[in-house]
Amino acid sequence: MKEFWSSRIRGLTPYTPGEQPRERKFIKLNTNENPYPPSPMALSAIRAAADEPLRLYPDPDCTQLREVMAATCGLKPSQVFVGNGSDEVLALCFQAFFDPDRILLFPDVTYSFYPVFAALYGLQYRQVPLDEGFGVPVESFLAPNGGVVLANPNAPTGRALSLCAIRRILEGNPGAVVLVDEAYVDFGAESAVELIDRYPNLVVVQTLSKSRSLAGLRVGFALAQENLIAALNCVKNSFNSYPLDRLALAGAEGALRDPDYFRTTTAQIIATRDRTAARLKTLGFDVCESASNFLFIAHPKAPAKVLLDGLRERGILVRWWDQPRIRNHLRVSVGTQTEMDALYDALSELVR
Amino acid sequence: MKEFWSSRIRGLTPYTPGEQPRERKFIKLNTNENPYPPSPMALSAIRAAADEPLRLYPDPDCTQLREVMAATCGLKPSQVFVGNGSDEVLALCFQAFFDPDRILLFPDVTYSFYPVFAALYGLQYRQVPLDEGFGVPVESFLAPNGGVVLANPNAPTGRALSLCAIRRILEGNPGAVVLVDEAYVDFGAESAVELIDRYPNLVVVQTLSKSRSLAGLRVGFALAQENLIAALNCVKNSFNSYPLDRLALAGAEGALRDPDYFRTTTAQIIATRDRTAARLKTLGFDVCESASNFLFIAHPKAPAKVLLDGLRERGILVRWWDQPRIRNHLRVSVGTQTEMDALYDALSELVR
Repeated sequence: MKEFWSSRIRGLTPYTPGEQPRERKFIKLNTNENPYPPSPMALSAIRAAADEPLRLYPDPDCTQLREVMAATCGLKPSQVFVGNGSDEVLALCFQAFFDPDRILLFPDVTYSFYPVFAALYGLQYRQVPLDEGFGVPVESFLAPNGGVVLANPNAPTGRALSLCAIRRILEGNPGAVVLVDEAYVDFGAESAVELIDRYPNLVVVQTLSKSRSLAGLRVGFALAQENLIAALNCVKNSFNSYPLDRLALAGAEGALRDPDYFRTTTAQIIATRDRTAARLKTLGFDVCESASNFLFIAHPKAPAKVLLDGLRERGILVRWWDQPRIRNHLRVSVGTQTEMDALYDALSELVR
Repeated sequence: MKEFWSSRIRGLTPYTPGEQPRERKFIKLNTNENPYPPSPMALSAIRAAADEPLRLYPDPDCTQLREVMAATCGLKPSQVFVGNGSDEVLALCFQAFFDPDRILLFPDVTYSFYPVFAALYGLQYRQVPLDEGFGVPVESFLAPNGGVVLANPNAPTGRALSLCAIRRILEGNPGAVVLVDEAYVDFGAESAVELIDRYPNLVVVQTLSKSRSLAGLRVGFALAQENLIAALNCVKNSFNSYPLDRLALAGAEGALRDPDYFRTTTAQIIATRDRTAARLKTLGFDVCESASNFLFIAHPKAPAKVLLDGLRERGILVRWWDQPRIRNHLRVSVGTQTEMDALYDALSELVR
């Protein structure tokens, strides 16, 4: 088999996304989706766009959406790039900024798509071990390298890095791009967006999938100085001129125009997260300090795989990786308060 | 400038899509969009999908849409791959099937994205000259090569290749993939889909952008034997797990479930095309025999660039390339009968 496969592709091990059950019978805490529906402004913008103009190509430059996003972040539209979900944006960043002969650095425990992107583009990388408590050892990212990739907050740990630490990494790498993946930043970490005007080597990636309840719409952003955004446009326009359809453009704009809804739902998730963390500790769980919309938990007596299976039997999906260092951990997305109560009840049964 | 750009990216010249004016004052015959709105079934499916489930990731495997497409084409779902527009599908094909050390072949006059994809992935290619009438010289595609890419009907000429010719090319290249880009096939060419079960080296790419009036939705397909589809999934899952949003999935399925609308609008476009071609000939235009939804025209006395500018002044956009061999041609999309009458009137004024 694999006849006709290109040599690069034969050696790839693709990313495995969390399960998306086609029936809706589960309490789904496995892919960090938002438990609240998208903003009504996003939904009505989409419905209005579902009409005759769909016969026409979308704006390849996403001009209007970039303007709204720029205003949301305090940037210029020329500092904003839009892609088909932040995974696509990250992949284009790997192509635009990293070279095969210079070694990339990222943590050993982080978003498992980073090594997959590196393999796809033939890039070498070194995985820097996090410390015992899954903290980022800043010094280790100051060694000579061809680029740094950091999720902040990190996944699947949920731990945030301070802006001060990010500045040290930016200043220690003046010749390489530092890519900060802020998929979860709105749930409690400090965004590096405010550093963009000072650091020509900083790229911040964000998404509407988590805090804006639009995982089903596939919209992600890169935010950086114009020179880096131009590189992304060069890759994008050599790959796919129109990565965002008209409905995604309309819905994304609608969501960004509704900051009140965003603030309310985000605050609710943070409150639920903190309450859940406290309750799980009473059951004996170690709970990583989370600045995200998920909790990374381990129990000293109950193996994670046993809990994973037990939760599934009780209709609750969470995420587990059969990987060194985190084999005894589960990542649990923060759902509604009711869903988290069901999780608590199931776990208290399982660890008893 | 270009500090921090990867070495591959520094040398790229991206594709230039046709103009998408933000105001709707033009008769837009420049990007081969369908003049008729999408099927009402597509629009109502999208409106129904614009709801709470958008908070959840879409099905990464596009299972249901692949089933509907398979039924539409007489294939198995495992022989169908879905991507974010056929440009993305083509780009993934270039990654999946072609290697840097084996030379790709495609015509000198064809879709201008092919050399851009090749440059992005570091592939060598040779552009095979079409004959004087822009026909494909089949023999030239039987030389040893690392892959063949053919648009059928070809763009921007509109000329179709027979299935017999495609079979010769497939049989002459048993060790290389032959990629047949059928973006325009529904307007009068023979599809190579029926050859898929016989040729393990055939990939057919189709799109909903043209004959299904959904350029704004970004949905394309690759159709091939399972082994080749598996290669595409390997690339896709190393790049972006969820390339299609929930609305695109719903709309695409709605469109495919409405074959009557598709047949009616396609027949109307073909009738308008043929009527327009006949009328333009009376003005002295050379009109390439078209099996697509556009006409490739040249006038022996009026330079194409002059016509382009004159049409624009009269509110009509068409496409022109400042390229060898086709510098005196215009590509004109087939619009409604009224739009084509306006085109005819404007051109008859301009060539007088």
